[in-house]
Amino acid sequence: MEKTFTPKTRAELRDLWSELSPEDQISSFKSLSALEAGKFFAELDARDQAKIILSLPLSERQLWIRVLNPDDAADVIQETDESERQALLDMLDQVTRNEVSALLAYAEDVAGGLMNPRYVAIRPDMSVDEAISYIRLRAREQFENVYYIYVVDSEQRLLGVASMRDLFQAASDQKVQDVMRTQPVTISELMDQEEISLVFAANNLLALPVVDQDGHMKGVVTVDDIVDVVEEEATEDIQKIGGTEALEAPYLQISLSGMIRKRAGWLTVLFIGEMLTASTMQFFENEIAKAVILALFLPLIISSGGNAGSQASTLVIRAMALGEVKPRDWWRVTGREFLVGLALGGILAAIGLLRVLVWQAAFKTYGQYFVLIGATVACSVVGVVLWGTLVGSFLPFVLKKAGFDPASASAPFVATLVDVTGIVIYFTVASALLRGTLL
Amino acid sequence: MEKTFTPKTRAELRDLWSELSPEDQISSFKSLSALEAGKFFAELDARDQAKIILSLPLSERQLWIRVLNPDDAADVIQETDESERQALLDMLDQVTRNEVSALLAYAEDVAGGLMNPRYVAIRPDMSVDEAISYIRLRAREQFENVYYIYVVDSEQRLLGVASMRDLFQAASDQKVQDVMRTQPVTISELMDQEEISLVFAANNLLALPVVDQDGHMKGVVTVDDIVDVVEEEATEDIQKIGGTEALEAPYLQISLSGMIRKRAGWLTVLFIGEMLTASTMQFFENEIAKAVILALFLPLIISSGGNAGSQASTLVIRAMALGEVKPRDWWRVTGREFLVGLALGGILAAIGLLRVLVWQAAFKTYGQYFVLIGATVACSVVGVVLWGTLVGSFLPFVLKKAGFDPASASAPFVATLVDVTGIVIYFTVASALLRGTLL
Repeated sequence: MEKTFTPKTRAELRDLWSELSPEDQISSFKSLSALEAGKFFAELDARDQAKIILSLPLSERQLWIRVLNPDDAADVIQETDESERQALLDMLDQVTRNEVSALLAYAEDVAGGLMNPRYVAIRPDMSVDEAISYIRLRAREQFENVYYIYVVDSEQRLLGVASMRDLFQAASDQKVQDVMRTQPVTISELMDQEEISLVFAANNLLALPVVDQDGHMKGVVTVDDIVDVVEEEATEDIQKIGGTEALEAPYLQISLSGMIRKRAGWLTVLFIGEMLTASTMQFFENEIAKAVILALFLPLIISSGGNAGSQASTLVIRAMALGEVKPRDWWRVTGREFLVGLALGGILAAIGLLRVLVWQAAFKTYGQYFVLIGATVACSVVGVVLWGTLVGSFLPFVLKKAGFDPASASAPFVATLVDVTGIVIYFTVASALLRGTLL
Repeated sequence: MEKTFTPKTRAELRDLWSELSPEDQISSFKSLSALEAGKFFAELDARDQAKIILSLPLSERQLWIRVLNPDDAADVIQETDESERQALLDMLDQVTRNEVSALLAYAEDVAGGLMNPRYVAIRPDMSVDEAISYIRLRAREQFENVYYIYVVDSEQRLLGVASMRDLFQAASDQKVQDVMRTQPVTISELMDQEEISLVFAANNLLALPVVDQDGHMKGVVTVDDIVDVVEEEATEDIQKIGGTEALEAPYLQISLSGMIRKRAGWLTVLFIGEMLTASTMQFFENEIAKAVILALFLPLIISSGGNAGSQASTLVIRAMALGEVKPRDWWRVTGREFLVGLALGGILAAIGLLRVLVWQAAFKTYGQYFVLIGATVACSVVGVVLWGTLVGSFLPFVLKKAGFDPASASAPFVATLVDVTGIVIYFTVASALLRGTLL
């Protein structure tokens, strides 16, 4: 056995490459032997493939764009500027050009944009042996998969699916229609990639046929493309939950100014929103002046609402993305979160009360009204945590309903929303409990 | 074409089922015809399959555990209590029992625990035609895939891989060793599932061979299992980033008390950590009493540090999970984040200063020292945002180094850490700038 090209070294090679300057990337690519270059090229993502193709002289571009399958070629062309696209399309052969043009008409993130328009289709009345011979013949052409064979009628309407294993297991003279699985799981041309990934996750299939509304077969989406999609969608959601725009590029590859732009937007919105806390606090300026002690607990109380809200919103956002929670479940979720918020608020309130009592016993920190102070802290914590939990769990539903991404209900966003109301809750409780004593 | 069993209705069916009470789930499963029950069972995840098997009388259990492939049977057995496991193992045939036992010896989340120990292996000196006939024969047995064929020597050491397409494309009398791809990408038995998913995402393959350290073939991990893994890992990370423990079950299926337990732990830790703010504020009680106006800006300033920190930590956590950022990159990341933090702090400081100046011009809110107050806010914001960004980006590296999951550097955790230091930064700046005027 020759030295194994293990994933580790392979991944490392690409890592090293990705850290080179654009010029060095090109020159190191050119220094590879034809065989190595082909392997390396096939492994790159569409962004890097486009970068390499555009860096080559016109005469060499055709070679590289032609090695790609139609769906991959479409991805590469989508990564280039409008002005380059027609020239690249023209380098393809007639058949592929038509296929790629059709793919480019779909959005990148729906089934039509992800699918490979080439697949093996057979007729239902073929025998198993005829089918296998035909598939062997077709294998010389360029298509991605021969593990599922699609059985279609004369108008390309999908009748059933047979795996290679189904064919191999059957007797040679059986008819394909007796071997195929009818009622296959299909996806529509316009199904969003996030939804497609859920269909794959639910069905454990390697490929799904894409059909139009009349059941005509249009292409095949394979699961290896979906792994990338799932990673990508999760990355976007995580970045949004953290309170940035989706970066849409690896962390270390984005420019400094690009990074600042992606983060400054939300941070500014949150900062301006949080300014309401200054106005709200001003409203309670007299109370603070009379009882400075109230200010001491303020960060503790409002942050507990923000934390409880972050928990609730991220759980609901993820459950929505996984399809575990549907918009119609808002009432069930709110009911649950009400109880959870109450329980969590109760636990934290008990700890807060304990803190006041222990500090009072140890250091006499809070003066004669320590019981009332403790009660103020405890009641506020219950109110703020409950409120934070409800806002956090409800906000993703509101955003979804309004047509926004629920993941925009980021932890910092919820915390900011809850901070302002937290201040109101705290000082309202304080006014009620401390009126006539400290206030 | 018969009515299509579209993914929509199929998914809906399972959704409806998942919302039933445990008793109704069982009785509705039993009401299905044998064919429907088989289809439905195959689609369920291991948790639900285990639930169904255990609900059946002993005499019927064998049927259902035996329909599963060894890797799926191992998953189901892993979902049951220790006390049930031996009885279920005993229901398997000898060969499968040995395979399942071997799988159970691996952790669930490494290659050894994910792989199917059944695959098609052929010898390098077979002709392509012999190989295809052999594969057809083997297809009658129970194994999952026939799209990659593994070429091994007499000691089961992996020599190469051929896809069905490679075999179909070759001439009938060519030797397998001349058709196979050498140097295949392999994974080791103990590779973690998160790492495996990155290898799949990088290589766009449908299956990867698992080999031990001497290159012996142990089994095959298929990409359809990896879609679930990727979803699962992302879900765990998102839940941790939101400041809860990983739920490890769908949101609506977890019990209320389970939900409270998963969330109360971190919330309590954060609450106790945040109590330090009360102690810190107490240290500055005199300053607050002298200049109540300082308290008004406190939530604004400390929250901006928390928000900036949440952004930085989530970006770094995700980049680490995707392998874009390695531990050795900490210095590059810190350098970048220093500049980003400075820029973001500058932007927010300008907005904060503007706010003070505009409010002063409009309402005379801040008295004669408004310029100093504005300067205090602006300088504090720069300091707090820079500090938050650095802490947020550095913390995942520290956690990773210490052997914890970097995703534990949740948005609320970072915010809490930064709140305490934010207070110190703010009052220190205020003391320096306002000494002799307001203080």
